Amino acid sequence: MPKREIIEGKPVLLVIDIQENDFRDEGVPSAIRTMPGYLDHVSRTRELVDVAHEAGVPIVFVKEVHRPDHVDFGRELDGSEDVHCIETNPATDYAKAMDPRPTDYFIAKRRYSCFFGTDLEILLKGLGADTLVLTCGLTDVCGHYTFVDGHQRDYFCRVVEDCVAGSSLRAHDGALEAMEYLQAGARRSLEETKAAFRAHAGGRPIAAAG
Amino acid sequence: MPKREIIEGKPVLLVIDIQENDFRDEGVPSAIRTMPGYLDHVSRTRELVDVAHEAGVPIVFVKEVHRPDHVDFGRELDGSEDVHCIETNPATDYAKAMDPRPTDYFIAKRRYSCFFGTDLEILLKGLGADTLVLTCGLTDVCGHYTFVDGHQRDYFCRVVEDCVAGSSLRAHDGALEAMEYLQAGARRSLEETKAAFRAHAGGRPIAAAG
Amino acid sequence: MPKREIIEGKPVLLVIDIQENDFRDEGVPSAIRTMPGYLDHVSRTRELVDVAHEAGVPIVFVKEVHRPDHVDFGRELDGSEDVHCIETNPATDYAKAMDPRPTDYFIAKRRYSCFFGTDLEILLKGLGADTLVLTCGLTDVCGHYTFVDGHQRDYFCRVVEDCVAGSSLRAHDGALEAMEYLQAGARRSLEETKAAFRAHAGGRPIAAAG
Amino acid sequence: MPKREIIEGKPVLLVIDIQENDFRDEGVPSAIRTMPGYLDHVSRTRELVDVAHEAGVPIVFVKEVHRPDHVDFGRELDGSEDVHCIETNPATDYAKAMDPRPTDYFIAKRRYSCFFGTDLEILLKGLGADTLVLTCGLTDVCGHYTFVDGHQRDYFCRVVEDCVAGSSLRAHDGALEAMEYLQAGARRSLEETKAAFRAHAGGRPIAAAG
Repeated sequence: MPKREIIEGKPVLLVIDIQENDFRDEGVPSAIRTMPGYLDHVSRTRELVDVAHEAGVPIVFVKEVHRPDHVDFGRELDGSEDVHCIETNPATDYAKAMDPRPTDYFIAKRRYSCFFGTDLEILLKGLGADTLVLTCGLTDVCGHYTFVDGHQRDYFCRVVEDCVAGSSLRAHDGALEAMEYLQAGARRSLEETKAAFRAHAGGRPIAAAG
Repeated sequence: MPKREIIEGKPVLLVIDIQENDFRDEGVPSAIRTMPGYLDHVSRTRELVDVAHEAGVPIVFVKEVHRPDHVDFGRELDGSEDVHCIETNPATDYAKAMDPRPTDYFIAKRRYSCFFGTDLEILLKGLGADTLVLTCGLTDVCGHYTFVDGHQRDYFCRVVEDCVAGSSLRAHDGALEAMEYLQAGARRSLEETKAAFRAHAGGRPIAAAG
Repeated sequence: MPKREIIEGKPVLLVIDIQENDFRDEGVPSAIRTMPGYLDHVSRTRELVDVAHEAGVPIVFVKEVHRPDHVDFGRELDGSEDVHCIETNPATDYAKAMDPRPTDYFIAKRRYSCFFGTDLEILLKGLGADTLVLTCGLTDVCGHYTFVDGHQRDYFCRVVEDCVAGSSLRAHDGALEAMEYLQAGARRSLEETKAAFRAHAGGRPIAAAG
Repeated sequence: MPKREIIEGKPVLLVIDIQENDFRDEGVPSAIRTMPGYLDHVSRTRELVDVAHEAGVPIVFVKEVHRPDHVDFGRELDGSEDVHCIETNPATDYAKAMDPRPTDYFIAKRRYSCFFGTDLEILLKGLGADTLVLTCGLTDVCGHYTFVDGHQRDYFCRVVEDCVAGSSLRAHDGALEAMEYLQAGARRSLEETKAAFRAHAGGRPIAAAG
């Protein structure tokens, strides 16, 4: 097997489930348990978004949403998560701290994998994407399962491990190891990913900021 | 084979691609060709929506949308259709004439079939749907291909033939015949469908109007 | 829009539902009604298979199959078709008259679209396919709905109209028109398709016959 | 949330990737690394198969297969696994030690999730399945990702933890914890699952052995 580069072909950055509720202290216990340092990890995604904006790497912001009558939760309330991400709640929106711009792409999903019941693959085909670079609110749920679905659809998949955080440290570590099992070199640092985005931009015109 | 009723199990009404642009005269040639009487046909859907609202039959409004940079058109511009349904254009929104209400369901799609790249099946499972009743802007495109995908997923599918209109009369007729080929009794009139919705409501509490 | 060639990028030939039962007179009424000249049309596919074999165009043979206990028929018996294609019946196999070879590809399906519940898209990605060339037992069912699903997945789709036959002449014609609506130039003759396969082969080594 | 039973509604047993190669010592290093005790774990699945046969619980045997020209491996060779499960190799077949019978169901897959590119969901709808009971060759790959896909499709999912084995003990444990995160009570013992199958059979006629 040939050694793989951090970016093979054309990259796309996926920013998954980093939503307003991550940045709001509403004085109530969260519906979803997270590991220590959660907010530091996901906040660092902003650095990568900035470089992607500069380098012209397409960004897809994905948010989880559920309808107010709970009709679309499926089995999601049978486990560790309580009611979450009701779409009429402003805290469910894409996190402003990530600087989403009108020229970026936006997808709402109702399950863990960003591919499940969404138009993500339509968009990725339109963009000609080859490599998916993932940052995510929960490493071991939406991050892991989006990676698997991207992998099964033949994309090169990378996870920026400084920018993701799990439901527990143990679950976070286990998910990163599972991704590395699927694709050697999947785990990447924020610094090397930023460098790769910049090098990628060197080969073509830098997109104007939105 | 047992004879099938117009409604088997639990019904859901799908109102497909009846959008504001159908009701606006913008003085420019349409991006999509339609048969004579198009607007009369799709407008009649409102009668069915009213009965569904009264009878507590869930309604899913579906609209076609495309991003302003055309990234998601795929092969849709290789045939008879020109650029259409740009999502930032107010004329792309659900038609107000159909009386969509906050308690109804809404799905945006980027392809012809309402199942393709959308959360429709998630929603239908949540609703416990068994029978899909279709009305549609283009009988032979979004109507036909949504019927086929519903059929392939084991739903009982019905098309209300007074309420749909095609890209031409010939294409409209051909699509209705193709649906009837797949499920005997698929083609239904507005009057018998209204009666079936009312009879269905008789068996359980009438939902309060939204 | 740029004018499209008969073959854009890399072609793959799909031979759909041309099965042994098409070539056997079992003295019983067929489970599925077909148009006059049915066998002449589908038999002509062999010419295209021969050229594809010579020219190194990958061929995917697809057959419809159902389990003997009928568990997977879904709604397929609610319409015009009777029980068909039981997988334990030798007449359900790929038609020998089409000269399928071990180096060709084979996919069994349980619904009309070749994409539905099969690994066709996995295979097409592996082959790097861009253009799907279709021949088919029923123009208006498996042919039409496979075309639509290929179209929705952004493939260039072509139908070889001398080599397909429908459930009736009217349904056959209607389906061909519907395909042409989706992609201008979709309808192609056997002669021009053979010529295109040969020209395509000119650009690269001719594959050894299997 | 209501407390869930081990079997909700109608159960189906999925026996995933327990193939002849698990039971053959071919004197060569395996293409896929496994945890200590691997064969003991997967072999125990036979006890559950026997009870399912007696109790009339439908069994679906799933095997992973790849074509001899490797066209369908996608990204599967970019990670920890070497070439595996070539479909023309007799060792790729369903393990005879599991007593597969003609009245059971059989599905071949090319990716990790049993739902990906297969007709599994068609079959499950036909069977009216509500609860999926999983045993599997690799807990953390095909087991975990099939569980996730079943979960996302609203099935109740259970994993029989005595009967599954992972690529390492750590990965095995992590995957079981991830499944329990998704559905409380997902992890079940062989003994309680056998008892549940027997109790389920009590409510309806015992199927004749195939």
